[in-house]
Amino acid sequence: MMRFEKVAVIGVGLIGGSFALALKSANACGRVVGIGRSAANLRLALDSGLIDSIAADASGADLVLVATPVAQTPQVLASLAPQLKPSAIVTDAGSTKRDVVAAARAALGAKLRQFVPAHPIAGAEKSGAAAASADLFRGKRVVLTPLQENSAASLQAIESAWSACGARVSRMSPEEHDAVFAAVSHLPHLLAYALVHEFAGRGNSAQLFGYAAGGFRDFTRIASSHPEMWRDICVANREPLLAELDRYAAKLRALRPLLERGDGAALEKLFAQARAARERWLSGEVE
Amino acid sequence: MMRFEKVAVIGVGLIGGSFALALKSANACGRVVGIGRSAANLRLALDSGLIDSIAADASGADLVLVATPVAQTPQVLASLAPQLKPSAIVTDAGSTKRDVVAAARAALGAKLRQFVPAHPIAGAEKSGAAAASADLFRGKRVVLTPLQENSAASLQAIESAWSACGARVSRMSPEEHDAVFAAVSHLPHLLAYALVHEFAGRGNSAQLFGYAAGGFRDFTRIASSHPEMWRDICVANREPLLAELDRYAAKLRALRPLLERGDGAALEKLFAQARAARERWLSGEVE
Repeated sequence: MMRFEKVAVIGVGLIGGSFALALKSANACGRVVGIGRSAANLRLALDSGLIDSIAADASGADLVLVATPVAQTPQVLASLAPQLKPSAIVTDAGSTKRDVVAAARAALGAKLRQFVPAHPIAGAEKSGAAAASADLFRGKRVVLTPLQENSAASLQAIESAWSACGARVSRMSPEEHDAVFAAVSHLPHLLAYALVHEFAGRGNSAQLFGYAAGGFRDFTRIASSHPEMWRDICVANREPLLAELDRYAAKLRALRPLLERGDGAALEKLFAQARAARERWLSGEVE
Repeated sequence: MMRFEKVAVIGVGLIGGSFALALKSANACGRVVGIGRSAANLRLALDSGLIDSIAADASGADLVLVATPVAQTPQVLASLAPQLKPSAIVTDAGSTKRDVVAAARAALGAKLRQFVPAHPIAGAEKSGAAAASADLFRGKRVVLTPLQENSAASLQAIESAWSACGARVSRMSPEEHDAVFAAVSHLPHLLAYALVHEFAGRGNSAQLFGYAAGGFRDFTRIASSHPEMWRDICVANREPLLAELDRYAAKLRALRPLLERGDGAALEKLFAQARAARERWLSGEVE
């Protein structure tokens, strides 16, 4: 395991704070400085021991994590560029990757090679430094989307940092990443928001919600996600997400005639295949 | 609270067994006889104390619950009709109600007035007598869809029986019931099955499932429901469900241009409205 003497976390929220705590508890870092816009949040992070000091910038850091909301990434990277020493390596935690890579290409110039984009697949129901935990990434996946410019050493160092947090690290291209997550994450969010919005807008919405039960609650849990965060994700990843939305709409159109003609055998087959696929997934056969 | 001297439960599974246990623990019944096709299941129900004896039919019962799979309801009601004494009352537990009412009209003749259809909104992730619990209906809704033919006394007796199980009893017409549940229950099941089936059929399904996380797991939980049960529900309730499917498809078509033009403000507004509606529902303001 590598050790990073000075770590800078830009944006000490759930993700940034948990990254700091996890590196500390793995003894993979010396000290952590926190950088952010909210003095109150930084003070909380300091008092809770997530960071060792508050800093104005990431000068002198060996490892930098950019964990601000994704919409701020371009300006954060632009300010970061002049502060980076040649041996520093940088990673991020954004849920979409093509946009982050484009922002990095625009902002980092020759230092692009020092930046290895990452997406930790870790829950975000709570937010802020107060929700940080050393175990947030334990057993969770982190997808790296390396750049051609990255050296093998940078890649290895970033992989080592996320592994030290307990994560299972894998690699994809940014395009592949964004296509996969448009399907398994972004589309379900859009579908859940759409269903709740549809019922909320009806004249009998009180009655509908009054009879909604556990199935509806779980199906729509992700419709309680942060609107700003999902706005940014949907806008950043709109082409792959549109493609997924269109494929799903086509699936519903294909399913419709089965229902219309009351084709119980075909419906049961589809339901049984779906259930079997889900059970295989839950039992860990699919990985 | 009314007391039913002899209760007959036809189909002693999760629902039937829990109904028997709940009535017993509320001291709302004398003895319970169990009727069913599986001798092993009836024996288990007897040994577990859900029922007091196994019977061939419901002769002499004061209260009868039909809790077989919905597709069997017509033949069960047809066999039941000649056994019913004039003072007996009958209820059921089917998830759709227009079809049950039609079956009852066809099977019960002059005894139709003794049948009060019911839909307990209670979980069914496990099944069989082994999963029965006296608390299954506690605090849950039970919707009665009374018939014009029902006397006030029959209605009151069935309401009393379900209330004794701890349920919150309300009333709707069969048509209103089927429309409401097409929206808040049947449509989400169809959407979840469709999403899992879509991904399972792709060349990269292993990769997709490999990166699916908690949001996907909850969104698709209901795609692990019983295929046969949901086949029957979808076929029985296909007109209201088709109408809901079409409205949802129209919602997705309306949402698509927001995504296509990257209209972050409109997306955020929709997401925020959906989230607010869901939070109001969870906090119990909508009832």
